[in-house]
Amino acid sequence: MNVKITGTGCYIPSNVETNKDFLEHEFLNNDGTPFKQQTNIIIKKFKSITGIGERRYAEAQHSSSDLAFFAAEKAIADAKIDPEELDYIIFAQNFGDIKKGAIQSDAVPSLASRVKHSLRIKNPKCVAYDVVFGCPGWVEGTIQAYAFIKAGIAKKCLVIGSETLSRVIDKHDRDSMIYSDGAGATVMETTDEDCGIISHESATHSYDEAHYLFFGKSNNLALTEDTRYIKMFGRKIYEFALTHVPSAMKACLDKSGIPIESLKKIFIHQANEKMDEAIVERFYLLYDKEVPKDIMPMTIHDLGNSSVATIPTLLDSVIKGKIKDQEIHKGDIIMFASVGAGMNINAILYKY
Amino acid sequence: MNVKITGTGCYIPSNVETNKDFLEHEFLNNDGTPFKQQTNIIIKKFKSITGIGERRYAEAQHSSSDLAFFAAEKAIADAKIDPEELDYIIFAQNFGDIKKGAIQSDAVPSLASRVKHSLRIKNPKCVAYDVVFGCPGWVEGTIQAYAFIKAGIAKKCLVIGSETLSRVIDKHDRDSMIYSDGAGATVMETTDEDCGIISHESATHSYDEAHYLFFGKSNNLALTEDTRYIKMFGRKIYEFALTHVPSAMKACLDKSGIPIESLKKIFIHQANEKMDEAIVERFYLLYDKEVPKDIMPMTIHDLGNSSVATIPTLLDSVIKGKIKDQEIHKGDIIMFASVGAGMNINAILYKY
Repeated sequence: MNVKITGTGCYIPSNVETNKDFLEHEFLNNDGTPFKQQTNIIIKKFKSITGIGERRYAEAQHSSSDLAFFAAEKAIADAKIDPEELDYIIFAQNFGDIKKGAIQSDAVPSLASRVKHSLRIKNPKCVAYDVVFGCPGWVEGTIQAYAFIKAGIAKKCLVIGSETLSRVIDKHDRDSMIYSDGAGATVMETTDEDCGIISHESATHSYDEAHYLFFGKSNNLALTEDTRYIKMFGRKIYEFALTHVPSAMKACLDKSGIPIESLKKIFIHQANEKMDEAIVERFYLLYDKEVPKDIMPMTIHDLGNSSVATIPTLLDSVIKGKIKDQEIHKGDIIMFASVGAGMNINAILYKY
Repeated sequence: MNVKITGTGCYIPSNVETNKDFLEHEFLNNDGTPFKQQTNIIIKKFKSITGIGERRYAEAQHSSSDLAFFAAEKAIADAKIDPEELDYIIFAQNFGDIKKGAIQSDAVPSLASRVKHSLRIKNPKCVAYDVVFGCPGWVEGTIQAYAFIKAGIAKKCLVIGSETLSRVIDKHDRDSMIYSDGAGATVMETTDEDCGIISHESATHSYDEAHYLFFGKSNNLALTEDTRYIKMFGRKIYEFALTHVPSAMKACLDKSGIPIESLKKIFIHQANEKMDEAIVERFYLLYDKEVPKDIMPMTIHDLGNSSVATIPTLLDSVIKGKIKDQEIHKGDIIMFASVGAGMNINAILYKY
């Protein structure tokens, strides 16, 4: 028995926030001092490193669980299943629901429970819970669904990643330009076909790295209020990712016994284009290989980093033919790989 | 191969908040109107229904993940394992870490990752994540650990439940007297012995019930700020629990084929003594039986409702002989049962 993804869906909010929209922001260093460069230069440099030209912000009336519901509806329709047959709804999130203009996270009830409510599923045996695992949450939720199916306690699972990072950004922090909102969802089922999840790998590096991504105060020290925002030590994360993500990807691939030449696509978490390119380069270097052309579909230019939503959104977009020069075919070996707060890393090798 | 709990630990904060401490609180109805009764009468009535005489609040310098760390250290010592051998740290939580005096929840990094950091575990293959499943989170985390072990992807797991509900209570809400702070932890391992988890049952009732427990505004409508607090429709929850928890417990027991006469203890989530008694009474009624004496150890009188922490704290307290006239012995059949936000219900049948 194998476990495969039978349906995908995503919700990309219609509000486009371009790099130009940040021109009026007063960016400050972590210590509150102003940058020596002008904002337009900072933005230009940001674009050249991260690849991000614009990102999406959720509509004012929507919270993360709303975006998730829209994505889930599409994934269920795509899988052509009766939602009442779902054994699990696994919702990867990190900040819960945050209303526009508010600063409190809300996860009571769980966002999975809210989605189940919105989907009008009656079956109480459909167990809905949230998983908090940083940006790699959707990949981890997929591994958890796989474990439940392998353990014989589930047959059909809905796995969702949704986040509204626009509601936890510090406008005085240059890194605020990275973050985006969105939702992606997948349906997983058992199958007798020769396809689905082949191997997986997960890691939590918390000895020194636990607080590389954290919830902290504004760079504008003049702000007296106690509000906290998503923060990161970008340089440390960059170095950490380059050291540990390629080896985790290798561990995942090597478990499978499949040669790297068979790998057709890598769906990697998108937080920084240069970082992603460097990770994939180092991954291939571990096999003394060069990176094949078009191995890594990218959405970061237009969608930024939507955390847990990034990979399922990317997968759905490629399957539905929405990314230029990127397609996957039945039988292709693909990999999902992610890194984020925790610091967590994971990867899944998958036969499409 | 069976899966059993090899170590337990809990952390009960030293700050005692007695019912008398609420005498100066101005309790209001949901619509902001004052109660007709005096506060001392309200408190007396509250005590007679819920059984709660006092509760514990975390020390000002501690957050939920700190309490969790203290409990985890004890559970690991009790299990006599090297923490580096842990495959998973599963942390059940609903409100993340909230600093004393703050209103923002913080789960970046995950609380599991913070505990792993505090335990000084280096092994990156020890995967740390949080699960959000209302009060039944620790029971659900235990079921998830069981699934990972059964699926062959884990051998040793640490499951924690920790919460600081004192930091999300509305002082103008009578229900604020229910909530408490605390942490409980367990280590789970494979075993060849004839003991451990026998059967389990989980349910999410969200069609009508999703928002019976929620995050809402103060009963004091004169407060203009936007802060939200833990809120519940107590009457609805009471009726819901009495309707659905006994049947979930029965489903769990019946799966095992073990007769109800063999059941020695029920470790039930403690939110309301009268409700717990009524649930257990109805459970036995489903078998045309009377409730055996001392079947249900209680900590609610002194510890209130510490959410996800309640059952592991109760289990640890009974095992360590800290609850009068309550003990369990090798080979005893016991049950864990919980109900809470989601609305979620779960149960585990276990041979000690």
